[in-house]
Amino acid sequence: MFIKNGWYVAAWGNEIGRELTQRWIAGDPLVLYRTEAGKVVALEDRCPHRRASLAKGRLVGDTVQCGYHGITFDCLGSCVHIPGQEKIPGSMAARAYPVLEKWQWVWVWMGDPDAADESLLPDFHYNDAPGWVATGGCIPVKANYQLLTDNLLDLTHETYVHGKTIGNSAIVETPISYRVEGNEVHVERIIRNAPPPPLFQQVRNFEGNIDRWQIIRFQMPAHISIDARGLPAGTNDIERGMRWFSINSITPVNERSSLYYWTITRCFSLEDESLTKVVSDQIYKTFMEDVEVLEAQQALIETDQRRKAEVSIRADSGSVSARRIVQRLVEKDASTTSERMIPEVAQ
Amino acid sequence: MFIKNGWYVAAWGNEIGRELTQRWIAGDPLVLYRTEAGKVVALEDRCPHRRASLAKGRLVGDTVQCGYHGITFDCLGSCVHIPGQEKIPGSMAARAYPVLEKWQWVWVWMGDPDAADESLLPDFHYNDAPGWVATGGCIPVKANYQLLTDNLLDLTHETYVHGKTIGNSAIVETPISYRVEGNEVHVERIIRNAPPPPLFQQVRNFEGNIDRWQIIRFQMPAHISIDARGLPAGTNDIERGMRWFSINSITPVNERSSLYYWTITRCFSLEDESLTKVVSDQIYKTFMEDVEVLEAQQALIETDQRRKAEVSIRADSGSVSARRIVQRLVEKDASTTSERMIPEVAQ
Amino acid sequence: MFIKNGWYVAAWGNEIGRELTQRWIAGDPLVLYRTEAGKVVALEDRCPHRRASLAKGRLVGDTVQCGYHGITFDCLGSCVHIPGQEKIPGSMAARAYPVLEKWQWVWVWMGDPDAADESLLPDFHYNDAPGWVATGGCIPVKANYQLLTDNLLDLTHETYVHGKTIGNSAIVETPISYRVEGNEVHVERIIRNAPPPPLFQQVRNFEGNIDRWQIIRFQMPAHISIDARGLPAGTNDIERGMRWFSINSITPVNERSSLYYWTITRCFSLEDESLTKVVSDQIYKTFMEDVEVLEAQQALIETDQRRKAEVSIRADSGSVSARRIVQRLVEKDASTTSERMIPEVAQ
Repeated sequence: MFIKNGWYVAAWGNEIGRELTQRWIAGDPLVLYRTEAGKVVALEDRCPHRRASLAKGRLVGDTVQCGYHGITFDCLGSCVHIPGQEKIPGSMAARAYPVLEKWQWVWVWMGDPDAADESLLPDFHYNDAPGWVATGGCIPVKANYQLLTDNLLDLTHETYVHGKTIGNSAIVETPISYRVEGNEVHVERIIRNAPPPPLFQQVRNFEGNIDRWQIIRFQMPAHISIDARGLPAGTNDIERGMRWFSINSITPVNERSSLYYWTITRCFSLEDESLTKVVSDQIYKTFMEDVEVLEAQQALIETDQRRKAEVSIRADSGSVSARRIVQRLVEKDASTTSERMIPEVAQ
Repeated sequence: MFIKNGWYVAAWGNEIGRELTQRWIAGDPLVLYRTEAGKVVALEDRCPHRRASLAKGRLVGDTVQCGYHGITFDCLGSCVHIPGQEKIPGSMAARAYPVLEKWQWVWVWMGDPDAADESLLPDFHYNDAPGWVATGGCIPVKANYQLLTDNLLDLTHETYVHGKTIGNSAIVETPISYRVEGNEVHVERIIRNAPPPPLFQQVRNFEGNIDRWQIIRFQMPAHISIDARGLPAGTNDIERGMRWFSINSITPVNERSSLYYWTITRCFSLEDESLTKVVSDQIYKTFMEDVEVLEAQQALIETDQRRKAEVSIRADSGSVSARRIVQRLVEKDASTTSERMIPEVAQ
Repeated sequence: MFIKNGWYVAAWGNEIGRELTQRWIAGDPLVLYRTEAGKVVALEDRCPHRRASLAKGRLVGDTVQCGYHGITFDCLGSCVHIPGQEKIPGSMAARAYPVLEKWQWVWVWMGDPDAADESLLPDFHYNDAPGWVATGGCIPVKANYQLLTDNLLDLTHETYVHGKTIGNSAIVETPISYRVEGNEVHVERIIRNAPPPPLFQQVRNFEGNIDRWQIIRFQMPAHISIDARGLPAGTNDIERGMRWFSINSITPVNERSSLYYWTITRCFSLEDESLTKVVSDQIYKTFMEDVEVLEAQQALIETDQRRKAEVSIRADSGSVSARRIVQRLVEKDASTTSERMIPEVAQ
């Protein structure tokens, strides 16, 4: 169950160059490469001839030559050469996906190309905004992508899963507020006058309690940013406090497997590279704690014979809202986007 | 195809302590632990909230705290705490399974809790009876549990599979008798005046032929004890002979995989620890010969496209009877035990 | 989708001796062995009793004794002994497959035994013809067998996949001719006055351009021979040229997996063993390049959710014709060969 008409992260920008790279998104294989002019191209990674992997072929200028029989496609997926014959049937075309490159990431639109709309990108501009420093990665997770968005929309789990880094009991003791705006969900928790969690203390060496802000924003299909702040309690003193964005984009590989693209981007101690390393290492460790929980959860869901309804609690308000948005958009895609099938033309 | 209203071995008693242990029985995951007072508890290992594995959580006193969002359950599976909210919906409950601990093993009742009946335990009291010494283990087998009960109810296979330990041609040359009593099957073979098999000879150093008894008792769902005796031929001289019970309990993990709990418990040379080791090593080796046969059999059954009917022989009388009992009880479970579904209550 | 009434290679002749060997063909397990007189026998490798693997049993003279319960079958699959009982039910029989041993290979007929017809063997006599030297092997491939026959019937792929050994651009620049004769497909390409590909140059050290012949013959179910010649351009000088047959037989293991039996058999430099090694090593390397392409192709076909029709090109003429023949014969098998089911007889 995937939203088609939406943007998914396919790669870090610096992963795609002048070679062919295969990536899977929402059950479909893509081949990605950069043109000589530097623009990223995404085609379906199945040769329309016999389903060979174009990613195993060769880049010839800005065209992709299939490594099996030499059939060649341009950046739009149009066939420009069939060895041994002049006539090119119109059906010999690879599907091309709209691509954007922005905020360090390569974005692919999996639905109707005519509906591709840059304004539907999530607002992740802090990933490379002036005055901000980002560190991040990409973690493969053997779980459905919605288990990850659930996870990020209910941060009470930090208390139980991440007690060594970003969690403590203050989180679970503080209620959230949430609101739905169109296809976005906003969840807020503001913790007043509580001890900092271990990683915050390590990063900023607070002398006492802090006020901690968690301002979560979900955008479809599976993008979540968290405006996270820790300030000396009762102050708005950002000089002695900290603020970063946790930026998260979940790309479904298929129904059972996902890629978790993440950054932490901060606006303090910009030059401190050892701090960047601490944040990177500790957040990676933190997310791997999630992976262990989520992969076990996925296995227990897949093997569930009885399928009793899940029982929701108050802390699920944000994630339940996000699931409803995804459900509605998936149904809308199914009813309005008839995939534009290219009829096979006999040669 | 599993009997629900029956007892299955979930673990050796000494495997379960003050930590959380996951086990699978008949397709369902269980979390097991021991209370402070020492009683074993078994709950379904899926948090009713979002299906996290409770076994990855924490034991807090006698309660289990889910490691994902901190929801906490008592020994009856009742929810006693939801972080961040006071109201606990009635549907927030983990299924609790009736448990017995007896004869070194932990037994779980997989069906209707109200029907749990200790009198349906198989009679395995020799596992820790005074005057008897048991040795044993648990072997994972990639095969349906009924292939193991078939195996144990027709010991002619010892001639062909176990010629190095407990088999010889005398077995297959001696006919069996069998009878069905309620849900039990009894198979008897008394071999007169035949050479002892290698392991018997190693254990008791017989000077000549023996009389060998194999008194097999099947109890549902998949419990088999074998009263095995070897006596100098024509005598009833237990002093110069041997007697042990081979006690076998097969726990289905799922349709394709089982756990084989076994002991050999003897009433002679009780203090001889080197003999205990010989018996343990040789019987383990013997059972691993079965595992090789059974796993190949399972693979050939799963890949069988034609599904011709099996052709039974006289030696199958006991195993065919046991299969009929299991079939009948599975059908009875299906017709009378409607699983008590707890309806979800909106919070 | 397999042709039943046809011959498949089950093994190299020298692989089958006086021990039991399991092989899978078209989804069915077989046990193979050689009688004391040296004839190869093939039975279904499932004991009709309880589906134990006969291949794990013992050869007793020319009979197979099941290693589980000792039931014994002769070369025709008839049961000759059931331990502990005298009466043998007629249904206690293992299916026996017609077998031929010819041209170094063991051939099994997977269909109606009465229809087994030696004249339907493919003509692979060069595998051990006087004046010819063969080298070869067997490569497991995780792909449907028809992807391999497609591959061998369109050699334009040599240009793109095998540029280091047998491919160069001359192939793709030369059109093919093809014809269908009954259940055979013939494809011919004669390349005039072109540079030799690297392996040809290594083998024969040509001084200039060559004429290159590729005479391909497909015989059902999946047998392909290629009469390959390289001659100094404009001559018919076999003394300074080369000729070999590439003999290929694809045995489907199941729908997703195949065994690729192959030889290269040549009629020049017969005594040159280092040449044999060069050919063997380089052709193996060449075929492993195919395996990489084909296994990726198989994976992309299996995961294809949209199943758009493939788009064929002119070079596919031979392979499309072969697929039509296979399709027609599979349908014919399904309509005329009702598998002779042996009804179970109650004992």
